[in-house]
Amino acid sequence: MEKYSSIEDLKIAHRRIKPFIHNTPVLTSESINKMVGSEVFFKCENFQKVGAFKIRGATNAILSLSEAEKKFGVATHSSGNHAQAVALAARQNDIKAYIVMPETASKIKRKAVLEYGAKVITCDSNLKAREETLKQVLNERGAFFIHPYNDINVIKGQATAAIELLNQCPGLNILMAPVGGGGLISGTALAAINFSPQVKVIGGEPKGADDAYNSLRAGKIIEKQNPSSIADGLLATVGIINFDIIQKYVDKIFVVEEEEIIAAMRFIWERMKIIIEPSAAVPVAALFKNKEYLSGYKIGIIISGGNVDLSSLPFK
Amino acid sequence: MEKYSSIEDLKIAHRRIKPFIHNTPVLTSESINKMVGSEVFFKCENFQKVGAFKIRGATNAILSLSEAEKKFGVATHSSGNHAQAVALAARQNDIKAYIVMPETASKIKRKAVLEYGAKVITCDSNLKAREETLKQVLNERGAFFIHPYNDINVIKGQATAAIELLNQCPGLNILMAPVGGGGLISGTALAAINFSPQVKVIGGEPKGADDAYNSLRAGKIIEKQNPSSIADGLLATVGIINFDIIQKYVDKIFVVEEEEIIAAMRFIWERMKIIIEPSAAVPVAALFKNKEYLSGYKIGIIISGGNVDLSSLPFK
Repeated sequence: MEKYSSIEDLKIAHRRIKPFIHNTPVLTSESINKMVGSEVFFKCENFQKVGAFKIRGATNAILSLSEAEKKFGVATHSSGNHAQAVALAARQNDIKAYIVMPETASKIKRKAVLEYGAKVITCDSNLKAREETLKQVLNERGAFFIHPYNDINVIKGQATAAIELLNQCPGLNILMAPVGGGGLISGTALAAINFSPQVKVIGGEPKGADDAYNSLRAGKIIEKQNPSSIADGLLATVGIINFDIIQKYVDKIFVVEEEEIIAAMRFIWERMKIIIEPSAAVPVAALFKNKEYLSGYKIGIIISGGNVDLSSLPFK
Repeated sequence: MEKYSSIEDLKIAHRRIKPFIHNTPVLTSESINKMVGSEVFFKCENFQKVGAFKIRGATNAILSLSEAEKKFGVATHSSGNHAQAVALAARQNDIKAYIVMPETASKIKRKAVLEYGAKVITCDSNLKAREETLKQVLNERGAFFIHPYNDINVIKGQATAAIELLNQCPGLNILMAPVGGGGLISGTALAAINFSPQVKVIGGEPKGADDAYNSLRAGKIIEKQNPSSIADGLLATVGIINFDIIQKYVDKIFVVEEEEIIAAMRFIWERMKIIIEPSAAVPVAALFKNKEYLSGYKIGIIISGGNVDLSSLPFK
């Protein structure tokens, strides 16, 4: 059985990216503990550089490149946190970055990517246009593609959030994280299986984009047609490497509804006074929904990011 | 010259309230440091119990009462954080609390006070009605009045936020805090003068409620007619004890406009991913506005609270 990574592997990745990331704090809330009947530890990747865990994977992937591979820069397509992560990780390592963004991407995110010194290439807002535009950029520029999740070096980078959390909170029983393309949850699973194999890993996924949940039940990847959720960081179909790791090492995936995501997000904002994005609220909603099942445990949740547009919030 | 408190006094207050409060974390932001050209340390009282520093003063005041004084409970009038603080501090010490709240007080805050087990007495929404209703409660119930700011035990309690901050960040040059009735800024000044007399204390006040600024210039308390600001925790007229301490130990007060408060609040939400209330954004706005004057210093800012109504935010 392929383990994908050893303890030593993950330690190397962590040591390598440390100068470029924050070891983010872990926060707790007495009122939430009381409400759910378990002890919950929130790993605040919303306080991470670029406002999300994505800088970990992007940095590790870039630092893993050979001189030849990175000579002409790196490229990716993303309208979200991975775009900013690749842009910043590239700048911190003095290499060029090309980011393919759909014309519908928010101006704020586009601006952030430009401020990190990356070149933005705009394309139509559909997967085919994205992939073709990216292919063109790779051919023309000779840049190296940094996949947002289906890349073992990206996954090892994302694993470092859970590695820190396991160190910060000894004795955890459960680790929870959101599931989109599967980069964070598979990294979290690799961290657990290597450093604390007794810890169970549980994912949270929006009902409107529950491809990983369905795939896990079917035993093979099943794409979701027209995925849709306020948790816009979780719309991607689970990657091949990610799915293999999820099948092997993730205990289960809980699915949550849109209104449960919004309610959990609001609850965290109001009680903990921290800003978390809808995608980050998904495992929190999964915890709230399944609190009886999870009661009595010490639970670590990775709060994946905090990038929201304050001009259009879902609160009424 | 009356010093109001000694190092020993303040240490006793801190030791006494410690079991009932959080030693809140201090956060920093590289992008804000770069923007203002100084090193800024944010003391996160938005993460404090009841979501604001007020629990410190209320707890110290209640713990300073004699058995006879607290026999029939405590009372106060407040539509804001002080109401919740007195309610929780009373419950934590097994005494009754009566809170006079104007009928216009937000339902959320009223509910919070009731959940802490206090009795809420509703009155008309003007200062006269508040004071008369409170007087009635004090007479009928024999409860002890916990003033929101013009009380040396409340002030000593509020001082403990700065005491912690000075311990958490050695070498600070400046402490900043908002100015309303003056409880927090006068406590901050007492902490500085006793523990780090070389540290300058600077207040931030909204232009729409700049009574302390005007009073400081005039050398006597000058009430502001119809004060108004989004920073609704800062509308009170500065107290007599508070003003005396401000005159003696506060270096200066900076005044900021409404749009500067909203912009600073939004900036902190977006960059630091923490929720701060408008009143807490006032000293931040003062820092941003006077960044040349303050550049090069190590500055501690007390983020006074994080209680906002997410259903009516000022962001467009």
